[in-house]
Amino acid sequence: MSTDPRLFIDAPLSASAAIPLAREDAHYLINVMRRGEGDVVRVFNGRDGEWSAVIAHASRKGAGLTVADQTRPQQGVPDLWLMFAPVRRSKTELIVEKATELGAAVIAPVVTERTQSDRIKFERLQAITKEAAEQTERLDLPELRTSEKLAAVLDNWPDDRLLIFCDESGDEADAAWGGARGRGQPMAAALAGAGDRPAAILIGPEGGFSPAERDRLRSLQHVVPVTLGPRILRAETAAIAALTIWQSTCGDWR
Amino acid sequence: MSTDPRLFIDAPLSASAAIPLAREDAHYLINVMRRGEGDVVRVFNGRDGEWSAVIAHASRKGAGLTVADQTRPQQGVPDLWLMFAPVRRSKTELIVEKATELGAAVIAPVVTERTQSDRIKFERLQAITKEAAEQTERLDLPELRTSEKLAAVLDNWPDDRLLIFCDESGDEADAAWGGARGRGQPMAAALAGAGDRPAAILIGPEGGFSPAERDRLRSLQHVVPVTLGPRILRAETAAIAALTIWQSTCGDWR
Repeated sequence: MSTDPRLFIDAPLSASAAIPLAREDAHYLINVMRRGEGDVVRVFNGRDGEWSAVIAHASRKGAGLTVADQTRPQQGVPDLWLMFAPVRRSKTELIVEKATELGAAVIAPVVTERTQSDRIKFERLQAITKEAAEQTERLDLPELRTSEKLAAVLDNWPDDRLLIFCDESGDEADAAWGGARGRGQPMAAALAGAGDRPAAILIGPEGGFSPAERDRLRSLQHVVPVTLGPRILRAETAAIAALTIWQSTCGDWR
Repeated sequence: MSTDPRLFIDAPLSASAAIPLAREDAHYLINVMRRGEGDVVRVFNGRDGEWSAVIAHASRKGAGLTVADQTRPQQGVPDLWLMFAPVRRSKTELIVEKATELGAAVIAPVVTERTQSDRIKFERLQAITKEAAEQTERLDLPELRTSEKLAAVLDNWPDDRLLIFCDESGDEADAAWGGARGRGQPMAAALAGAGDRPAAILIGPEGGFSPAERDRLRSLQHVVPVTLGPRILRAETAAIAALTIWQSTCGDWR
């Protein structure tokens, strides 16, 4: 694997194309990575695959690349969404970074009844997806959505998409359901046979889902309630673990 | 599930036992959690299960508990070790916290040829395992080991323990092995049938393993080389993902 720096560039890529660099990208290449004129970088835009490119000019006024050859054809990630209730800032940023590394196609903050923080720094999170995609050898960025209320998300749920409901509330859920409907199955077992179906993972806030939310979720036909082991995971750990199990069971880690 | 605060206490627990609290635990209960005399907490020591206890006294001079009833019998975690090359401090701390949540029995930093940082703040990491175990409803703490060189670890490798070698080096490994020995299998597939065998996960540094290390690892009989999907994961992400897949395939998430 090449150790040339990688950049996501929002511009068409083809042989000999001249690409002016955004200020942050120029700073990263020249000042952080210590590259200069004539050095090779790799670029991708989410559509045209990965290309090698050469730093054509670099000065205080800016820098630009000249695209050379395609190094990899375009390849996407499996059709998996991560929906999560925003937690405090550092944890939300960790979730977005790791969801990008773990190959989520869509990252969607959802506001539940017990969500403590619905403030999302959208541009900051977008920058995190870009940096994580560059480092993780992805050829696209995940689609980062703006926050939406869980109720509205469920109102418009696409019929063909499995909703994997990570219900980390343990005994509380047992009690609420009087044992009658039971808890979810272990996630890997619950996904057996779900192979190539579009899917979404739903992770609740630290305080869990409300009884009304849990009631509605469990009544929907495309919802699969799952458990993530006998210990209680923090929200960001649950998100990372659920993405991993899905990729390993249904996604492109098979 | 009770929302009473939980504390790991390194003392024997039995009905009516009087437990003086360490200063940090007293601070956490009284100042952070705003509990006072007569309030209920839960305690565990890694041996005697979980007990309810009452705050018997709390003043500037200190605080103490009186143990009441056992709330859960002792239960351990599966026999899984996480061995990882220390990375920069915040990432090492994340790995230790998440390994505790994900139920590793042993957490062991190993120094490889390309390990960039072999300084481990042992007491700080121990405090992280304690806090994570308290929050995650574990009934024990993982055993945190001091750093050891990979070569020494392999010299003394126990015969019955599987060594799951996460080789995130991608094409570099392909090239080094000339395709002859191939890359590892996807981890879940590689572990099929490894059910109740003691195991250890080995995660390398950001720079990967050296050719000599890879050579030695791949020549050992109890080593299973595995891959974690087509993207390149950062070290801490690889650690969390590998722990998740093991628990889901061989551990107590089944």
